[in-house]
Amino acid sequence: MLNEHLNIVITAGGTVESIDEVRSINNLSSGKLGSYLCSETIKLIENNPHVISCAIHYIVAKTAIKPHVESNDKISVKLYEVTDTNSIKNTVEELLNKVHIDYFIHSMAISDFTPKMIVDVNDLVQELYEKVMKIKENSNEAIMKAEIDSIIRNPRYAINRQQKVSSKADVMMLLEKTPKIISLVKDKNKQTYLVGFKLLRNVEEAQLIEAANKLTRDNGCDLVLANDLQYIIDGEHIGLLIKSGKVINRFNGKQSIAKGIIEEMFRSL
Amino acid sequence: MLNEHLNIVITAGGTVESIDEVRSINNLSSGKLGSYLCSETIKLIENNPHVISCAIHYIVAKTAIKPHVESNDKISVKLYEVTDTNSIKNTVEELLNKVHIDYFIHSMAISDFTPKMIVDVNDLVQELYEKVMKIKENSNEAIMKAEIDSIIRNPRYAINRQQKVSSKADVMMLLEKTPKIISLVKDKNKQTYLVGFKLLRNVEEAQLIEAANKLTRDNGCDLVLANDLQYIIDGEHIGLLIKSGKVINRFNGKQSIAKGIIEEMFRSL
Repeated sequence: MLNEHLNIVITAGGTVESIDEVRSINNLSSGKLGSYLCSETIKLIENNPHVISCAIHYIVAKTAIKPHVESNDKISVKLYEVTDTNSIKNTVEELLNKVHIDYFIHSMAISDFTPKMIVDVNDLVQELYEKVMKIKENSNEAIMKAEIDSIIRNPRYAINRQQKVSSKADVMMLLEKTPKIISLVKDKNKQTYLVGFKLLRNVEEAQLIEAANKLTRDNGCDLVLANDLQYIIDGEHIGLLIKSGKVINRFNGKQSIAKGIIEEMFRSL
Repeated sequence: MLNEHLNIVITAGGTVESIDEVRSINNLSSGKLGSYLCSETIKLIENNPHVISCAIHYIVAKTAIKPHVESNDKISVKLYEVTDTNSIKNTVEELLNKVHIDYFIHSMAISDFTPKMIVDVNDLVQELYEKVMKIKENSNEAIMKAEIDSIIRNPRYAINRQQKVSSKADVMMLLEKTPKIISLVKDKNKQTYLVGFKLLRNVEEAQLIEAANKLTRDNGCDLVLANDLQYIIDGEHIGLLIKSGKVINRFNGKQSIAKGIIEEMFRSL
């Protein structure tokens, strides 16, 4: 393990998906945990004689706080600023293609959905009504459903999102699923050590652990930090560290969580 | 005009409307123009011998920058932090009921819509299909439209927003119109001097002026600052000052816009 050069990716902060030029759907995340993960990584690498040099690729939302760290002879930190899920996907893919990544810590809060279309509710109702009148005689279930689906996704009078969205009435917005960034990591390289994060709200611990295990099964995580919003409040932040389906540690506070993750991740270093 | 005590309201920044506990719809606004409006107001009031004392009620989004000002013997600045349109409405109504407001400068970027409901597209299509099958025999247009509208607004399987919103498929989100804050001002007191703001994107100047005039007609603005996103770029910011339907001045840059508005507003002081 001597003479080792490491490449580490940390993603941090929350995404911003544009609705139009002045409105967006934002995922709440200060980026604080990501910045602690970065400083804990530096601390452990600096004192590890087996590591000769290390590059930290820090992929961070524009709206998030940045880590207060400086590159030195042994460790370089490179920032990659991103905005929406698509820009993260491009950045991660390019990085995975160029660099052999040893560790990937995916702490970023990424939107599950991105705005695709907006329509005035009244226009949508009118169009669906007209369609109903036409397909009355037709009784094929699959065709009828496909026609309803097509109107909902591509209505005749979608609102122009190139201008500032405006409507006299309530509107419906179609939100499309975004691609899963975390799945890119092991698809590219099975050797990369992958740390995933699972955040739910108001669930039983068993349900939280099951969700973390599903994340592991789907994406090949080596470690998952699972947390519940009900226990992230007033400076408290309870996190469960899960490995091979089992809770191997519990932490309280972002700093402790970051330290716990990095220590476990570098255990074999 | 001697011995005058003034109450001035300035609203600033952009709203945050919750989708669930970790996601929101945000209106982009740094709050910079609002903070310049505040410092320009202080400059003019400080040197005006007719004003004995002045209270600035600064209503500002949590996410916006705050003005760097301090209260002194003559001028007090009070901050009111707000988040979504509803919290602004409550704050403004309470203030208008308690205090006689002399000037109201409404520079805040307030969301036109707030999330009301989210549904899986497939569930919505299924429910609309079932309804279509049932109402086939029914031919009353108004009743059929009302039934379609009711499904779109209140589908059987709306996603629970008390938990973190999750769906395997694309979703539709119903966005309801928010109440107009600016209309509260003259409804309460016809004497209040009201400054409105109109922001559009990629329109002809005539269309921008017409939109500003509509804002004036609907809400009794005494002054409107109209701007187009295509001319807010790289530190440039072109704004038209409109009074009684006419462009009375043009500015470039947020500082100049703020100075121009405050000078015009206090012209008769």
